[in-house]
Amino acid sequence: MASEGSKPVRIGLLGRGTVGAAFAALLAERADAVEAATGRRPEIAGVLTRGEGSFEQILAGSDLLVELIGGTEPAREHVLAALRAGKPVVTANKQLLAQHGDELFAVAREAGVQLRFEAAVAAVIPIVRTIQESFGVTEISKVFGIVNGTTNFILSEMAATGAGYEEVLARAQELGYAEADPSDDVGGADAAAKMAILARLAFHTPVTLAEVAFEGIEGIQPDDLAYAKELGLSLKLLGVAERRDGGISVRVFPCFLYPGHPLAPIEGPFNAVMVEAPAISEVTMSGPGAGGLQTASAVLGDVVSILAGDAPVHETRVELPIVADVGSSFYLHLEVADRPGVLARVATVLGEHGISVKSFVQRGTGSEARLVMVIHECLESKFSAAVEELSGLDDLRSPPRSIRVIEEEY
Amino acid sequence: MASEGSKPVRIGLLGRGTVGAAFAALLAERADAVEAATGRRPEIAGVLTRGEGSFEQILAGSDLLVELIGGTEPAREHVLAALRAGKPVVTANKQLLAQHGDELFAVAREAGVQLRFEAAVAAVIPIVRTIQESFGVTEISKVFGIVNGTTNFILSEMAATGAGYEEVLARAQELGYAEADPSDDVGGADAAAKMAILARLAFHTPVTLAEVAFEGIEGIQPDDLAYAKELGLSLKLLGVAERRDGGISVRVFPCFLYPGHPLAPIEGPFNAVMVEAPAISEVTMSGPGAGGLQTASAVLGDVVSILAGDAPVHETRVELPIVADVGSSFYLHLEVADRPGVLARVATVLGEHGISVKSFVQRGTGSEARLVMVIHECLESKFSAAVEELSGLDDLRSPPRSIRVIEEEY
Repeated sequence: MASEGSKPVRIGLLGRGTVGAAFAALLAERADAVEAATGRRPEIAGVLTRGEGSFEQILAGSDLLVELIGGTEPAREHVLAALRAGKPVVTANKQLLAQHGDELFAVAREAGVQLRFEAAVAAVIPIVRTIQESFGVTEISKVFGIVNGTTNFILSEMAATGAGYEEVLARAQELGYAEADPSDDVGGADAAAKMAILARLAFHTPVTLAEVAFEGIEGIQPDDLAYAKELGLSLKLLGVAERRDGGISVRVFPCFLYPGHPLAPIEGPFNAVMVEAPAISEVTMSGPGAGGLQTASAVLGDVVSILAGDAPVHETRVELPIVADVGSSFYLHLEVADRPGVLARVATVLGEHGISVKSFVQRGTGSEARLVMVIHECLESKFSAAVEELSGLDDLRSPPRSIRVIEEEY
Repeated sequence: MASEGSKPVRIGLLGRGTVGAAFAALLAERADAVEAATGRRPEIAGVLTRGEGSFEQILAGSDLLVELIGGTEPAREHVLAALRAGKPVVTANKQLLAQHGDELFAVAREAGVQLRFEAAVAAVIPIVRTIQESFGVTEISKVFGIVNGTTNFILSEMAATGAGYEEVLARAQELGYAEADPSDDVGGADAAAKMAILARLAFHTPVTLAEVAFEGIEGIQPDDLAYAKELGLSLKLLGVAERRDGGISVRVFPCFLYPGHPLAPIEGPFNAVMVEAPAISEVTMSGPGAGGLQTASAVLGDVVSILAGDAPVHETRVELPIVADVGSSFYLHLEVADRPGVLARVATVLGEHGISVKSFVQRGTGSEARLVMVIHECLESKFSAAVEELSGLDDLRSPPRSIRVIEEEY
């Protein structure tokens, strides 16, 4: 958008929820600074809410659209209409981008118009800009991190207090860290959408939400965290997008980290993302992953980049296959009958599947007997097959529980 | 720089040291990616070294200049000549920017030409871009962090091994983490130059190296680290640029951090920078602070932004006074004579200067007697006056030693 002297830039605002209201207030507060930085003074030209405003009128009266409605429809239609009308769009809508990214980016490219979305991933942590701009021509090997603050808060609290999942979830809801219906967060879908976006940017390849394998934290037991503490591990819900075997793997799963891992000290509702590449080693960025004002700040940063005349986003350029079966290390928790030969039978099953045990503890007696171990990295398909066979043993008092472990040294 | 189809962009390279050689290799390796991202293929048009090449010829044959000579002259002349010729410049030269920033930015603005310098601070950690672009209109309250990897390596090693400064410095030199003449790093001047640059960007105000108060780590004793460990503190050389009393304070000093501080776990030759603002809370970025390839990657990111047509850097816009006397908390180490009344005399001096003690230990007897304490935040001028008076007491066996303590809770 070229500078046009002192003519104000008219911003159409779609949505006036927490983030929308914070954005309108922040824009008014920083209007002088925006004008000083870009030569153009911003003003809100119109606001569309569920009850008020006409999208067509707002679009016609705006130079730039900020989409903060959330969800896929009508957000998708509105964003497409704006791009087709040649008007740049800033959005914080991760589901929209994760599910309809191909269509949106294609239309933006065709129209030669900017579509920016820093706030869609990790709020004010500038991970989108960093990957697109600072590392835009870097051969990124891996992007991973804690991209959901709700689950990180819950896991931190469970570890600190020993309380159960349901109890801590209720506390998170009271504190506003979890929504009334927390399923998108705790089930991993929210993190999966963010990882689809980051994978697309990092690897210049189309990735949709449907291609991200995700697991949540609903099944985590206080037991798992207690054993982890003994082994010196901390538990995080991690999103991982990485190059593997000529393709990429994009996944979300709870996993254990060894102490010294840069993500291990990230506690509470914070987010943190790491980018790895041979040419950069690793860069870690952390901060609040949500919050109305923080998210609004990220939106404002994008608006300013458009007004300043920054170049548009680079497009997707290659097609990389999704590699479904990757190697992982696992923690395995078995509640077993307290009788002779159990360990031998378990070890035999693992050995037959080519799985080797790294560390191992046997605990309790009678109805409390447990085998807890960490196994070395193996293909996940092998591990699943072994776990399925273990499930069939008469020796088990309940289904096996497993959690991935990140083995890398830092 | 507008796209001109398939015509290559000619890059003049000044300097072929570690970073220069790494940049040339990286540019060749990523030429396809640069062309895909920007529409223009980069090529090295000429290289100026101490022994070879003519600057005038290289400038005439280049579309863009990369300055990796270091030092202020002839780097300054060359950069000015390029900008005046309307050619964008990318530099990694922190001393140049910290000492001649005003002149360089003024000429770049006048010529309407880009001057980019991500690599000048914390190598590949994208702190310059983040402050300029993501937080370009954010009212930043504080930028601070570990911006010198050499000193962080030395302090980490001293804390981990109990070895003395000279011994660890020698090890750092063997490992290539410290130069043969380490004075710029260990004395704090390197960190001060980086903080001058960050302060300028964060507060949109001219700050020069001469306005940054800095101390180094040469005086740190193994003793200090041992006591700190007892108090649960870790020691870092911190650069701090912050708004204070209507002005700004920009300083570099060794200081103790409480556990839980986001910078406390940063060990070895790593850098980490935090940005604080009401609208963003805090964002922390960490990674390798040096290295030829990492620094070259940061330079390449800037080159790509220029080729892609990103907007130029925002200029300095306000004048904020430097506030010289600020409040700090201190650790104070006194080697005292082992006789009655010492503590009373020390406490009286502190009390008369309005200084209150937060925590206190008395150790050793005879010629080993020591008073070690942490005092609450007070104006540094008051603390200095108290220390000067303490120095005059007959009870002291050696001059008082003091180190700042960051008290903030995280």
